[in-house]
Amino acid sequence: MPNQNIPHPPTIAIVGVTGLVGAQALQILAERNHPSARIHCYGSPRSVGKHIDYQGIQLHIKPLDQLATDAIKCSIDYALLCADAPTAVNARDLLSHTQTTIIDNSSAFRLDPDVPLIIPEINAHLLALCPRVVANPNCSTIMLLAALAPIRQAIGIASIQLTTYQAVSGAGKAALAELRNQSQAYLDGNTIPPSVFPTPCAFNVFEHESPIDPATGFNGEETKIIQESRRICNDPNLQIFPTCVRVPVERAHTQSIVIELDAPSTVAQIRSLLDCPGIKLSDPGAPLTPRDAANQNDIHIGRIRIDPASHHRRAALWICADQIRKGAALNAIQIMDALQSDKASRAQTSQAVV
Amino acid sequence: MPNQNIPHPPTIAIVGVTGLVGAQALQILAERNHPSARIHCYGSPRSVGKHIDYQGIQLHIKPLDQLATDAIKCSIDYALLCADAPTAVNARDLLSHTQTTIIDNSSAFRLDPDVPLIIPEINAHLLALCPRVVANPNCSTIMLLAALAPIRQAIGIASIQLTTYQAVSGAGKAALAELRNQSQAYLDGNTIPPSVFPTPCAFNVFEHESPIDPATGFNGEETKIIQESRRICNDPNLQIFPTCVRVPVERAHTQSIVIELDAPSTVAQIRSLLDCPGIKLSDPGAPLTPRDAANQNDIHIGRIRIDPASHHRRAALWICADQIRKGAALNAIQIMDALQSDKASRAQTSQAVV
Repeated sequence: MPNQNIPHPPTIAIVGVTGLVGAQALQILAERNHPSARIHCYGSPRSVGKHIDYQGIQLHIKPLDQLATDAIKCSIDYALLCADAPTAVNARDLLSHTQTTIIDNSSAFRLDPDVPLIIPEINAHLLALCPRVVANPNCSTIMLLAALAPIRQAIGIASIQLTTYQAVSGAGKAALAELRNQSQAYLDGNTIPPSVFPTPCAFNVFEHESPIDPATGFNGEETKIIQESRRICNDPNLQIFPTCVRVPVERAHTQSIVIELDAPSTVAQIRSLLDCPGIKLSDPGAPLTPRDAANQNDIHIGRIRIDPASHHRRAALWICADQIRKGAALNAIQIMDALQSDKASRAQTSQAVV
Repeated sequence: MPNQNIPHPPTIAIVGVTGLVGAQALQILAERNHPSARIHCYGSPRSVGKHIDYQGIQLHIKPLDQLATDAIKCSIDYALLCADAPTAVNARDLLSHTQTTIIDNSSAFRLDPDVPLIIPEINAHLLALCPRVVANPNCSTIMLLAALAPIRQAIGIASIQLTTYQAVSGAGKAALAELRNQSQAYLDGNTIPPSVFPTPCAFNVFEHESPIDPATGFNGEETKIIQESRRICNDPNLQIFPTCVRVPVERAHTQSIVIELDAPSTVAQIRSLLDCPGIKLSDPGAPLTPRDAANQNDIHIGRIRIDPASHHRRAALWICADQIRKGAALNAIQIMDALQSDKASRAQTSQAVV
């Protein structure tokens, strides 16, 4: 819902508009009827000069080195970076002498102490400091912490264990094609060797493909979840032990979560805490799968259980969320909404002072 | 390996020989060159009168009501029941006046205090009591406890949490067909509604299809794992909290396990404990997937990690095992081996006494 205090919708640059996250950001803007004149699209050399459809209008895809000039000339308020970390660093440098606020989806700035790492449901207050760059967390971190936030606030969480079922689209468009091609070959009795992933993805499950730290055995996705969760929860000792796994699902990640609570609880209490905006609770006993959560904004939560042997202090949750929406593009746009809302409040306050 | 103390291989009945577990039992006997004359096959009315290939020999599939006569006439030593629980009860009753020992793969007798529930690596000593019926645990219970047994014995385990990635073949042949048919339809842009499973299985993950206990929210598979593990470990208070999930994999189950240890440990110590018969350890950092474990007898274990925030007391393991072999047919045959070995020891002892 657009904020009523803001007279003009912001002018937005999307960097990496042809990727899964960039295209999703554009689609969310279309769902909100954001005016096309206030959207600027940038792509890699492969996409530059092409067009991308936006509500029937063909938006021109511009080269990244035009971003700085456009930022000043067109008064770009926000640059949504939907590309890799090197591109993000490059865009940040290009925009260093502009008024554009950067919201970055890559891992480039997530652990930078000068850059707030934001899940609006948890730490939007950090945006009041008017950061020039804001980092969007890893998709798995976002869905995990956004789902647990109401429980953490009301009851307290002593430790988190999670095992993931991550969709291949988290690894991009080529991964989706690999899943489809390998699946067809498998059904035909043939084999297509893996190229995007290190192991066959069709009719298989496998450890997340990010590099493994030989010292700890953790893969990069697991390390990201630990480090980012500790930053976002502002708790460097947060007990969190993830196992990250890919499954042959096209879209929407699933997590099986077990939490140790600071106080005894019940399924009814947890359900009541989770009955809040941004979360869709499944009915008890009803099936919940990633295919239900695909292309949805809400985090879907089901299978809330209390371990009967835990004196009501250990709970399990099953959560499914579209990792390209809430796990990336939507969270970035929600960060932009929160920044806009802060800006509007400040404008009102300064008007009142005048 | 056949036991050298036994002059004659036992005579074996396989009940439900055309099912996935029965056919697997027959295949394991073939791999051991068990003499075909000492194998009797029984099937449902649909299969009776047909033949099943055994090393190029066509074995006749007989009706179940011939089992009692055959048991006496042909001196059947062991009946491997590879059918559902009602059939198991029926076969037990049919064999009540015979010398045949029953090894049952169904859930019929698993919680019967008069029937030992056996994973040979853990509690084969209970077979010394010459039980008339022995129960084979649930496939998920077998792979979990067999993998953890060396750690439990050497270090002690305070609690177990597991999240599963279970192959559809655990639900039988029709489930395999459903996965293939739905997958092809999905790739073609069509939909085939689920019939074996409550939700679409292709390109999806979903809660195990066993009935959900409305009081606790646990599904039947989870309850089985808890109850059977407590029996097998002889610890009614064993802390174990499972989440059971199906994935679009044809064969071999995977489990993501987190254990709290009774004493601090290291990855090196755990690897050294798990270096034992029946377990195949993956090299650190090497990928391990259910497709690697399919059609293998060993339980494959990889991704052994210690949570650095746990003072070396929390460990994770990733295990893959063919649930039709070690999770069912192989474990049943290993129970038979242990019973044979006991019988041979007793024969030797009584000969020595004579």
